Amino acid sequence: FNDLMSVKLFSIGDSSLTIGLLITLIISVTILFLLSEWIRRVLVNRVLKRYRIERGTRQSVGIIVKYILVIAGLFSIMQTNGIDLSAFGILAGALGVGIGFGLQNITNNFISGLIILFEQPIKIGDRIEVGDINGDVIKISARSTTVVTNDNISVIIPNSQFIDSQVINWSHNDRKVRFNFPVGVSYKENPEKVKKILLEVADQNEHILKTPAPDVLFDEFDDSSLNFILRVWTSEYVNKPRVLKSQLYFEIFRRFGEENIEIPFPQRDIHIISGAEKLNN
Amino acid sequence: FNDLMSVKLFSIGDSSLTIGLLITLIISVTILFLLSEWIRRVLVNRVLKRYRIERGTRQSVGIIVKYILVIAGLFSIMQTNGIDLSAFGILAGALGVGIGFGLQNITNNFISGLIILFEQPIKIGDRIEVGDINGDVIKISARSTTVVTNDNISVIIPNSQFIDSQVINWSHNDRKVRFNFPVGVSYKENPEKVKKILLEVADQNEHILKTPAPDVLFDEFDDSSLNFILRVWTSEYVNKPRVLKSQLYFEIFRRFGEENIEIPFPQRDIHIISGAEKLNN
Amino acid sequence: FNDLMSVKLFSIGDSSLTIGLLITLIISVTILFLLSEWIRRVLVNRVLKRYRIERGTRQSVGIIVKYILVIAGLFSIMQTNGIDLSAFGILAGALGVGIGFGLQNITNNFISGLIILFEQPIKIGDRIEVGDINGDVIKISARSTTVVTNDNISVIIPNSQFIDSQVINWSHNDRKVRFNFPVGVSYKENPEKVKKILLEVADQNEHILKTPAPDVLFDEFDDSSLNFILRVWTSEYVNKPRVLKSQLYFEIFRRFGEENIEIPFPQRDIHIISGAEKLNN
Amino acid sequence: FNDLMSVKLFSIGDSSLTIGLLITLIISVTILFLLSEWIRRVLVNRVLKRYRIERGTRQSVGIIVKYILVIAGLFSIMQTNGIDLSAFGILAGALGVGIGFGLQNITNNFISGLIILFEQPIKIGDRIEVGDINGDVIKISARSTTVVTNDNISVIIPNSQFIDSQVINWSHNDRKVRFNFPVGVSYKENPEKVKKILLEVADQNEHILKTPAPDVLFDEFDDSSLNFILRVWTSEYVNKPRVLKSQLYFEIFRRFGEENIEIPFPQRDIHIISGAEKLNN
Amino acid sequence: FNDLMSVKLFSIGDSSLTIGLLITLIISVTILFLLSEWIRRVLVNRVLKRYRIERGTRQSVGIIVKYILVIAGLFSIMQTNGIDLSAFGILAGALGVGIGFGLQNITNNFISGLIILFEQPIKIGDRIEVGDINGDVIKISARSTTVVTNDNISVIIPNSQFIDSQVINWSHNDRKVRFNFPVGVSYKENPEKVKKILLEVADQNEHILKTPAPDVLFDEFDDSSLNFILRVWTSEYVNKPRVLKSQLYFEIFRRFGEENIEIPFPQRDIHIISGAEKLNN
Amino acid sequence: FNDLMSVKLFSIGDSSLTIGLLITLIISVTILFLLSEWIRRVLVNRVLKRYRIERGTRQSVGIIVKYILVIAGLFSIMQTNGIDLSAFGILAGALGVGIGFGLQNITNNFISGLIILFEQPIKIGDRIEVGDINGDVIKISARSTTVVTNDNISVIIPNSQFIDSQVINWSHNDRKVRFNFPVGVSYKENPEKVKKILLEVADQNEHILKTPAPDVLFDEFDDSSLNFILRVWTSEYVNKPRVLKSQLYFEIFRRFGEENIEIPFPQRDIHIISGAEKLNN
Amino acid sequence: FNDLMSVKLFSIGDSSLTIGLLITLIISVTILFLLSEWIRRVLVNRVLKRYRIERGTRQSVGIIVKYILVIAGLFSIMQTNGIDLSAFGILAGALGVGIGFGLQNITNNFISGLIILFEQPIKIGDRIEVGDINGDVIKISARSTTVVTNDNISVIIPNSQFIDSQVINWSHNDRKVRFNFPVGVSYKENPEKVKKILLEVADQNEHILKTPAPDVLFDEFDDSSLNFILRVWTSEYVNKPRVLKSQLYFEIFRRFGEENIEIPFPQRDIHIISGAEKLNN
Repeated sequence: FNDLMSVKLFSIGDSSLTIGLLITLIISVTILFLLSEWIRRVLVNRVLKRYRIERGTRQSVGIIVKYILVIAGLFSIMQTNGIDLSAFGILAGALGVGIGFGLQNITNNFISGLIILFEQPIKIGDRIEVGDINGDVIKISARSTTVVTNDNISVIIPNSQFIDSQVINWSHNDRKVRFNFPVGVSYKENPEKVKKILLEVADQNEHILKTPAPDVLFDEFDDSSLNFILRVWTSEYVNKPRVLKSQLYFEIFRRFGEENIEIPFPQRDIHIISGAEKLNN
Repeated sequence: FNDLMSVKLFSIGDSSLTIGLLITLIISVTILFLLSEWIRRVLVNRVLKRYRIERGTRQSVGIIVKYILVIAGLFSIMQTNGIDLSAFGILAGALGVGIGFGLQNITNNFISGLIILFEQPIKIGDRIEVGDINGDVIKISARSTTVVTNDNISVIIPNSQFIDSQVINWSHNDRKVRFNFPVGVSYKENPEKVKKILLEVADQNEHILKTPAPDVLFDEFDDSSLNFILRVWTSEYVNKPRVLKSQLYFEIFRRFGEENIEIPFPQRDIHIISGAEKLNN
Repeated sequence: FNDLMSVKLFSIGDSSLTIGLLITLIISVTILFLLSEWIRRVLVNRVLKRYRIERGTRQSVGIIVKYILVIAGLFSIMQTNGIDLSAFGILAGALGVGIGFGLQNITNNFISGLIILFEQPIKIGDRIEVGDINGDVIKISARSTTVVTNDNISVIIPNSQFIDSQVINWSHNDRKVRFNFPVGVSYKENPEKVKKILLEVADQNEHILKTPAPDVLFDEFDDSSLNFILRVWTSEYVNKPRVLKSQLYFEIFRRFGEENIEIPFPQRDIHIISGAEKLNN
Repeated sequence: FNDLMSVKLFSIGDSSLTIGLLITLIISVTILFLLSEWIRRVLVNRVLKRYRIERGTRQSVGIIVKYILVIAGLFSIMQTNGIDLSAFGILAGALGVGIGFGLQNITNNFISGLIILFEQPIKIGDRIEVGDINGDVIKISARSTTVVTNDNISVIIPNSQFIDSQVINWSHNDRKVRFNFPVGVSYKENPEKVKKILLEVADQNEHILKTPAPDVLFDEFDDSSLNFILRVWTSEYVNKPRVLKSQLYFEIFRRFGEENIEIPFPQRDIHIISGAEKLNN
Repeated sequence: FNDLMSVKLFSIGDSSLTIGLLITLIISVTILFLLSEWIRRVLVNRVLKRYRIERGTRQSVGIIVKYILVIAGLFSIMQTNGIDLSAFGILAGALGVGIGFGLQNITNNFISGLIILFEQPIKIGDRIEVGDINGDVIKISARSTTVVTNDNISVIIPNSQFIDSQVINWSHNDRKVRFNFPVGVSYKENPEKVKKILLEVADQNEHILKTPAPDVLFDEFDDSSLNFILRVWTSEYVNKPRVLKSQLYFEIFRRFGEENIEIPFPQRDIHIISGAEKLNN
Repeated sequence: FNDLMSVKLFSIGDSSLTIGLLITLIISVTILFLLSEWIRRVLVNRVLKRYRIERGTRQSVGIIVKYILVIAGLFSIMQTNGIDLSAFGILAGALGVGIGFGLQNITNNFISGLIILFEQPIKIGDRIEVGDINGDVIKISARSTTVVTNDNISVIIPNSQFIDSQVINWSHNDRKVRFNFPVGVSYKENPEKVKKILLEVADQNEHILKTPAPDVLFDEFDDSSLNFILRVWTSEYVNKPRVLKSQLYFEIFRRFGEENIEIPFPQRDIHIISGAEKLNN
Repeated sequence: FNDLMSVKLFSIGDSSLTIGLLITLIISVTILFLLSEWIRRVLVNRVLKRYRIERGTRQSVGIIVKYILVIAGLFSIMQTNGIDLSAFGILAGALGVGIGFGLQNITNNFISGLIILFEQPIKIGDRIEVGDINGDVIKISARSTTVVTNDNISVIIPNSQFIDSQVINWSHNDRKVRFNFPVGVSYKENPEKVKKILLEVADQNEHILKTPAPDVLFDEFDDSSLNFILRVWTSEYVNKPRVLKSQLYFEIFRRFGEENIEIPFPQRDIHIISGAEKLNN
């Protein structure tokens, strides 16, 4: 039996794998896994429960402790069975490269975090826009940044997004910004009159700056409407342009009603080609 | 014959490949594969069946045992035939790099798992939104996280997705969130009256917070309708905004009916250009 | 002539390339290629044909044998002509990196296969959904997994897809799942009555669970219709929701007919602006 | 002059670049390029032309010979001028990495070819579908696979596509497959009657299997039509479902005509809001 | 107890991990983290507050100091406990590769910054267009470039975008640029007359160059209109083509009104096929 | 002064950077750049102009000569100032990796070029389709392949595209190819009659093969039309299917006119819901 | 105090980091940064201003000088404090890999620039099309190429785009190119007559080549029109096909008017299903 157990399966460098060793290894590893799982459960359900720690945190601690036990255990088992870890050079190298690449995304975020701290393209309290997210920065940690939108939804954004993509920081400039609001009117209206009314509406809104003055552009001959753009400067409503738009639209709609300016429905020119004659016997 | 068998095909370092060795190798490998496949079958269909282990698990165990046998066997065969594994340095390096890159995705997930445990952007029990998935976290393992949606569908999400992309954790903030519900009315309605009704509906819904107060925005002069947005704050319905919307829409539709506010069909202005004269003989 | 033949073109390390050697190499390699192609043909068309092996398998064996002969032959030729392979260190390294990267995709699949076996996010017999594919797992091999859809189409999916992307395993949860079926009705209908009818239909279907109870949401003021969503829980029809939808739709259509609830065609409001006066002489 | 010629520009390791050497190099390289281009032309237009080799092949051979001459020549020139190649260690390493990465795509294809041969997800003669291509495999070479579609167009597909993406092999399963054909009818038809007719049509088609039986699903309340899906099982028409669909559609259209089942045009409900009064004087 | 403490878990090179050492490490690290967090808070809330430094900057400084303390502390702890850092060769290498790849994006930006400084494809004060952003460069730093749009929104763009993608620098050329403005007219108009009017409008605008002369192209037979393109050269309005377009459109609309040129609504030819006969008793 | 000049800024290995050396370097490099730019201009505008070489080629030669001078000069300057290049090991390695990766794309193309020459998926003179490009191969060089479309536009395609993506080589198969041409007819037509006419048209076209015979599929119940597909085999028109389609469409339109088969306009069913009563006094 | 200062925090190789050294380092680095920033300002605002150098260039020079000072200073500080740079081997390696990857994009462009110079797929003065850009090459530098479009907009394109993607060089072929112009006519027109008119128009245009002759294809039975394609060959208008199209369209529209060929509006067949009876009391 001893002979069977000491049959060498193969050997790298000075370590040899015998059948006996293989069996020892399998049993040790199985015990290690069962034991560390049992410790995790006791820790989560008994020990930590007493300290009234939140359930989520408890389980995180439990899993981390288990992982440490397993990894330390595996090394320990290999050590005691005389397996020279340096014999796994190639595999270790491969694992190293793999871990390195796996780390790529994460180190990118950490280093981006450092750059954010030093270069300060964004700071806590800034109003920023990145990708589709528009909100206030409330926390910058090493890996991620938390932004709260106007709707009070907090989004966790990986730091690398602030380094890799275009960022608008509304707090960086002098907070005098121009917004463009589209307005379409019927083809039968006089463009100059429309322009005059839009400018009057903009002038009466107290949240719109007088200098630089508001502006109206004739933008497009559209299918059913002449499209204008009302361009206004504001410093108060930089963070909530939709509220400013709403104010202007309420007023524009009222004035258009008074002045009989029509906002057209989709138009269609009809040519009745055939069948009409049937209508008249 | 012996001469033929000992013809050296080529040699790297100290190992030489003779024809005899080649034949030995091919036969050994064939036997190894057949044997390990036979063991797998016996294990799955006879041995493990007795212990009433589930079929899927049984087959997993079978395949793992087979793989271990094949890999150990291959090393063993090469050892006994005197093939020095270190002679395959270059190939091993290549394999190493290949395995390393193959591991990239997987280590990324494991390390992301560790970061999730330490940084806790998500915890078990949290309500989260990542990509298209919106649900409750029920399990965080080393490689993946399981999320259950409102429809009780459990989705297995690789951990790296929580590190690489934007994550909304509804349990992170103070659970007072604003939702935007669109409502369009006919061009002939009075915007102020519409606003008043929408705010009344919002006020009467008990799941909507009084502070911050609901809000109505005039959002767009659309083709056939004036588009408003009802913005309401809630803390109860953060997890199921569609139910809140449903409640509001039932009530808005009832009130609009009472107040004769029209939700318009698509409108069209028709200009009959030609053919009309045919209609009148 | 001998002089010409022994002109050294260049030498790396101890190997030199003479003109004579170059010619020898070219001739040997040509013979090697012709010979191995001839062996492949004999093997495929004569030898293997006798054993009634399927044509596709026969050709695979033929090509593999040919490749082995060519590679072994190339090494052998270089050996006999005294070309020290280690002299090609740089090229070998480059090839190594190239092969390593080429292996990337494949090792990723194999390691993903191992993780599938150990972590068991999917098992043989499970009902899964990954990307666009929805079906039963019938085979998990080292590199790929075979899934059979309801239409009995078997799709071979690389294992890495199960590790890199979101996977829904319908067999993982307690198989009580909610499905959403849209229903739109005319604007002139009473939403409460529609809700009542839809719930009655759901109640009468025996494959729909009583608890949790079915539910109707008012989802949208659409262009021509009020859109509702019927949300039902089922455990039987988890694998074929379209059949459940079909049953409900047959019944909803029948009930709507009885109750005179209209499912509207696209609506349009017409304003005849000009041309109408021509109609009346 | 000799002094000028032997001015050392710089030296790496033991090799020095003198002005004389630089001029020698430039002249040698120029001659080498001209000479090998001349040999290529003679070879393509004179020598190979006699053997009636196809023009495309001739030019390929010509270019390959030229490349071999240029590369061997460059090494030879450097050797004779005493430039120690090992002095370019760094550059060679860089080139090595570059070539390695350049090889990435190609080795991926070759190794994928090997995996195709061993794992046999596809074999010569199989009917397969990968990406947008649906056809019969007619050739599997080391780098690519040739597939012929029903339209007799042969597409050369890199082998890696069969390893990286989802593959459907129609020859793998038992060739009993279900196809889904959509049919829409008018809202005024009786769904049960439509179902009955569709099933009758399916029953009468001899290429459709009796078991499993055909099936009709009520799929959608569409804008202008009730949409049904006829689901039929077939083993004969697995390779050409469009022909089966054509047969069924011819028959369905005939039966619908007999039974007065209407396939609707797009419907529209019109509300004449204004302008109508002008029509009546 | 000492024995227990000195049980070696495993050893790499000369360092051994004993249980005692493990406990020491865990306690030291915990203290280190708590201490550095406490220092950060004191620094941010007490020390820096006195110097009236902005809150965002204060917190950045606080976090940086904390990070330095933690990293220095970790090294220091390992040193004092006799852990030879060089023993973590493989892990360090892996981390190195990971950090290297993480740096990839960032070094790319820094080196792109250097290239921008030397090659000067863009300079401070230039008017540039890259991707969707069109504005004036106001700052070029090592990592990013800040561009201010016409709407006074400052966008922070990573430098690599200017090296990797196509850049238009309006300040590079002689600032004589042609813009294309589309105009559609009714099918019943004379194309030559339309061309004449458009050219007259362009001639009368003083901001449009006389040489090269404006130009009108007949571009498309569209569904309802003949589409022309007015092509004008300008040097003044290079930065704000929409303002120039607005001027031209105001004038074109006025002239078209005077000349009775129609800009058509969408046209439709109607064939009444059936139902018309019902209209006539 | 000498002391100031010999202040060592720092030293790596044996080389030290003194202030004097730094100044020497800056002056040398400036002169080198000015000189080589001056040589380039003389070469392009004076020397090469005499030989009537094309302007583009002249400038390419000029830039290449300038680059060689600059690089050789830089090495030379460093040599003479005693800067040991090997001291820049790390930087050189980094540059090496950078260059290697930069080479990636290019070596990929060159090696793809070699594979094209050996495997011959495309040859000069072949008709090929790759991506959106459909044309004749007129030149295969080491890096790229030139294809001329039917419109005589020559497109330069990187060789790697032929290796990485699916390629259709029309010259590879027996040039008997099937094309699909769609034809839609009115719902009131008899499908069998339509099929008959289409087949007659196909039979009368002499460029369409008799065997395999043409074929008509009933493809779709479309909104306004029954859609058929005419499938014809041809060997003559493989390169210009649009010309064949044009011939068939001319004839189909003529035959449909003779046989009174209608190709329908978009259809619409109108339900006048309200407003109609206003039409009647 | 000295003792405190000389507490070793940790040591790698022979260098130790003491507290005193740390403080020295922090102070030195701070001074270095302040000093170099001050020098930059003086240089930009005082020294260079006198030489009337453009503001953008001045600032570039200022930033470059600052960077050189900072980097040289950092090395110098470390040298004087006895920090052996070689001790940062691992970090340097990581930085090296990072810089290498960062260089990837840039070296790719430079090497692509070299290939452009040697292979000359594009030359200065050529008319080229790459991606969306169509224009004349006016400058080829080492990293990028500048192209001027017909609208006189100069676009800076990274050189790698010319190597990685398909390039059309209009100057490469014999400048006889075919363009396709679409024309749609009413269903009631005779296709042969339309073809005749289109060919006459093409024949009368003097910029269109007689050989190869123009050509008309019947391309599509569209919803409302028969679509033809006029294919003409030209050598003059290769660079501005839109101008040629404009000429032809002016003429085609005139001829169609004369010959009463109709270009149709969108057509619609109307079936009045219900409501019509209400029209007739």
